Amino acid sequence: MTIGFIGLGNMGSAIAGRLMKGGQSLVVWNRSPAAAERVASEGARRAGTPAEALQGEVAFSMLADDAAIEATLVTSGALKSARQGMVHVNCATVSVALAERLEALHGELGLAYVAAPVLGRPDAAAAGQLHVLAAGQPDAVAKVRPLLDLVGQRVWPVGDHAPMANVVKLACNFALASAIETLGEAGALAKAYGVEPAALFEVMTGSLFAAPAYRVYGGLIGERRFEPAGFRLPLGMKDVRLALEAGEAKHAPLPIASLLRDHFLAAIANGDADKDWSALAMTAFRNAGLA
Amino acid sequence: MTIGFIGLGNMGSAIAGRLMKGGQSLVVWNRSPAAAERVASEGARRAGTPAEALQGEVAFSMLADDAAIEATLVTSGALKSARQGMVHVNCATVSVALAERLEALHGELGLAYVAAPVLGRPDAAAAGQLHVLAAGQPDAVAKVRPLLDLVGQRVWPVGDHAPMANVVKLACNFALASAIETLGEAGALAKAYGVEPAALFEVMTGSLFAAPAYRVYGGLIGERRFEPAGFRLPLGMKDVRLALEAGEAKHAPLPIASLLRDHFLAAIANGDADKDWSALAMTAFRNAGLA
Amino acid sequence: MTIGFIGLGNMGSAIAGRLMKGGQSLVVWNRSPAAAERVASEGARRAGTPAEALQGEVAFSMLADDAAIEATLVTSGALKSARQGMVHVNCATVSVALAERLEALHGELGLAYVAAPVLGRPDAAAAGQLHVLAAGQPDAVAKVRPLLDLVGQRVWPVGDHAPMANVVKLACNFALASAIETLGEAGALAKAYGVEPAALFEVMTGSLFAAPAYRVYGGLIGERRFEPAGFRLPLGMKDVRLALEAGEAKHAPLPIASLLRDHFLAAIANGDADKDWSALAMTAFRNAGLA
Amino acid sequence: MTIGFIGLGNMGSAIAGRLMKGGQSLVVWNRSPAAAERVASEGARRAGTPAEALQGEVAFSMLADDAAIEATLVTSGALKSARQGMVHVNCATVSVALAERLEALHGELGLAYVAAPVLGRPDAAAAGQLHVLAAGQPDAVAKVRPLLDLVGQRVWPVGDHAPMANVVKLACNFALASAIETLGEAGALAKAYGVEPAALFEVMTGSLFAAPAYRVYGGLIGERRFEPAGFRLPLGMKDVRLALEAGEAKHAPLPIASLLRDHFLAAIANGDADKDWSALAMTAFRNAGLA
Repeated sequence: MTIGFIGLGNMGSAIAGRLMKGGQSLVVWNRSPAAAERVASEGARRAGTPAEALQGEVAFSMLADDAAIEATLVTSGALKSARQGMVHVNCATVSVALAERLEALHGELGLAYVAAPVLGRPDAAAAGQLHVLAAGQPDAVAKVRPLLDLVGQRVWPVGDHAPMANVVKLACNFALASAIETLGEAGALAKAYGVEPAALFEVMTGSLFAAPAYRVYGGLIGERRFEPAGFRLPLGMKDVRLALEAGEAKHAPLPIASLLRDHFLAAIANGDADKDWSALAMTAFRNAGLA
Repeated sequence: MTIGFIGLGNMGSAIAGRLMKGGQSLVVWNRSPAAAERVASEGARRAGTPAEALQGEVAFSMLADDAAIEATLVTSGALKSARQGMVHVNCATVSVALAERLEALHGELGLAYVAAPVLGRPDAAAAGQLHVLAAGQPDAVAKVRPLLDLVGQRVWPVGDHAPMANVVKLACNFALASAIETLGEAGALAKAYGVEPAALFEVMTGSLFAAPAYRVYGGLIGERRFEPAGFRLPLGMKDVRLALEAGEAKHAPLPIASLLRDHFLAAIANGDADKDWSALAMTAFRNAGLA
Repeated sequence: MTIGFIGLGNMGSAIAGRLMKGGQSLVVWNRSPAAAERVASEGARRAGTPAEALQGEVAFSMLADDAAIEATLVTSGALKSARQGMVHVNCATVSVALAERLEALHGELGLAYVAAPVLGRPDAAAAGQLHVLAAGQPDAVAKVRPLLDLVGQRVWPVGDHAPMANVVKLACNFALASAIETLGEAGALAKAYGVEPAALFEVMTGSLFAAPAYRVYGGLIGERRFEPAGFRLPLGMKDVRLALEAGEAKHAPLPIASLLRDHFLAAIANGDADKDWSALAMTAFRNAGLA
Repeated sequence: MTIGFIGLGNMGSAIAGRLMKGGQSLVVWNRSPAAAERVASEGARRAGTPAEALQGEVAFSMLADDAAIEATLVTSGALKSARQGMVHVNCATVSVALAERLEALHGELGLAYVAAPVLGRPDAAAAGQLHVLAAGQPDAVAKVRPLLDLVGQRVWPVGDHAPMANVVKLACNFALASAIETLGEAGALAKAYGVEPAALFEVMTGSLFAAPAYRVYGGLIGERRFEPAGFRLPLGMKDVRLALEAGEAKHAPLPIASLLRDHFLAAIANGDADKDWSALAMTAFRNAGLA
């Protein structure tokens, strides 16, 4: 099966690589040609336009944000000229509102839309260690399931409407940011009493919090190792904002998310915009005079 | 070595049982005699007064809260008549301020004070699965270390001043409450979009949040199984309040803890005082109209 | 001078009425014709299109929100065909981002843009009791100043860039919502101890808080008189959201605004969407079990 | 009538002065004798002990905080030797819990207890411009009402249980702190867009917020004039904490108060402990990078 692939940033390239490694033929498109050439050198065919990448039975996309998706696929008219019946698998973390619009639009155009956002960083993606969320019409999800299995270590079907996968993804990223903030506050409390934050985090990750989220971020915060950024702080704030917007649309307040957003802003205002989003934890230290 | 043991509630009895199982002779005291008799039936000697339990080289205590400790050990005069050089191992979760006062008082009285609060519930205690935090003067900690090793699966030395262990304990319980609230908010967001909270939690605990904290509380919240209470909600609020007070003494704000306290209060005001503290999560559902 | 006027809702009609009472000739346009007819019956001339209302030296607009402004004036092409040099006075509460875009767009089109949002309710508008904020290029503001003086009891020039007036307006509405929430929390505390909220508010407005904001909202909250709505609760939430968005664009966290947004959502989720925005105060009573 | 007066700090001296100016004879006691001598030089008689000041029909007290009251009046035994039937008028801002204990204790001792906390600063007190809250048994309040009328510009009876006046006082101080924080956040938002906070505050206090609270604190914040302190920041935090504790006792969450407490702590941690409590507003500017 020939598969289209649009958007070859760090994550996109890694996912595309997994599909090729699984024996799939790709037709790829990327705004800046360098990335497309690199993937082409590994065996993919380059498409001249986004529309050209939508002529197979399935197409993946992994674009940066809502605006890039709207511009590349909708405003450009690419979706309108996609092959009838095509299943579009969108791996990007997008707003729930866009997911709702895209699902409806695909339906109108005779296409299927599967949301398949992923959990994990680019290095996990390259190693096939992502967790892949999946939601959409059951037959469409079933059709692309073998491909999703190539992408990550585990596929999690979470519902028969595409936006449900985006909600789950945003909920997970919100929970990660909440864990980072909690580590920051707990660490500041410990430090105020002479306990090294790293020592506290060692206890936590050695007992009740023995999970990747706490190990990864506890490690970074304990050493204040916020550069280079694995996931830039403003991107983390964006995901929390998307969670807040999704909540607002359904009248579901998320007060911790509100607090996180405020602390992200304080972090940016205090010079941490280019750091990893775990630098969010420094707001707690700063507010305690312990930065 | 004969060891005193004061306070035989659920946790105290389980810890005393571990020590006896490890071959230690105990002299026990409890305010209400029933529990003391039960432990005596397993081989312990009963003390007629708290002071009588303080005549060995080491004494453990596991009393309910600050007030019980002050009344039983300080106001009663028991500590004043303790054997010179005795090491007092306090396993209770107490305020940092009390730990500071007790450490100073023991020093004045020629006694040593080791704070050894534990992580885990009574059933974990009985199974020897607790994590034991330990702080105090190094020689005193070293002396009781073999006993602490009998109590739990792992001992975590966290500092050479007793209050440091209490700070770590409060930080851990704060982090647990934060995880509960986060599960509540994330679960409410999911539910608002038709995703069962339990399905979201399954993804989380199967990937980035594969830790006991999330598995235990995600399970309870997903099923809304808040009774019987493993740890009553007002006790959870108390620990968060102790964290806030410890922070206040050092000018370290803990905004998530503040939010948790407010939600605990709302939970109590709405009738959840007798439920498990994971019922804290219901505040998020209530505020979203999804309770 | 002939003046265009676009948007004849409650506030628009009242402001248009003030201008006519001050001797000005109006050319009016409104989406639904009923309001335009009513104003025409008082002496205004009706325009067939928005563009037709933009052929004088000055045009006011008072449209419902960002979307209505974009649709009516920008997307429709009306602004492009406006009389060269025209000064557009926008009285609506819009997002700061839109104000920035509109100011730039007017400059490109050879028009001037004055932001003149108002403080006060429709009945105050009809009575000429509004406070009018004004910002924009000094010569444009100077030109329309005599008209603004007709509209309200006082004109407040707040800067030479139009968005500055919108920021001030949003800051004022944020402060009003904060006062409402504060009255709610203080009232719930009082009620919990048997003090009627109305009695507390009487003390407050008779001493340190002797201001319209507290008198008006203290009165409504004290009597729980939330219907009919003077300003619907979701509109109040919208303004707080606009303040949050304005803050986010400049990395200025507004934690009280975050909290207000969460409580507005809880109010909506609990059935208060059609009430006056002072019903925001009920969230505090509900959370205390005193609703 | 001879009136006892215990506690001659700034506020106590000013209130005592008002009573003497109104023709009352005072028997005064103060821990440090200098203040007692000064008041004596104005015609008061000095008592050798607190108990000696409690031998008239009425005694006022204005001590610094809960601890000073407990030490001076309860632990010292002074209250036990007070004249039977004496009405004790406590003007201090105390915890609601202490007010409840004191009311009960006075009843047991055959004394009456009136809580009469005041709104205003020492200069307002000297000028007779205080607002006086009053609560207690109606006959006791009635008896001291003529004296309270001498103290301030207006007496506000708020209930027939003494703690009710303390609740109202704490609610007012909470509302003041909330206004300060709101001015800080609104001011930071304005400043981020080039609007001077003082200009925003002028609009606010010239329109919807034309009240002493906003004029006084808007003025201080607009000029960042936080020294000398009229009311030290940690004392402001203490009153907010007392409001939180009063709320907790009745399960009434006060989320704005929680936020205020956190910001007070951040202010102290960042060096503002000796400034006026209006310096609380700087936390908002700091978090926006605008301090």
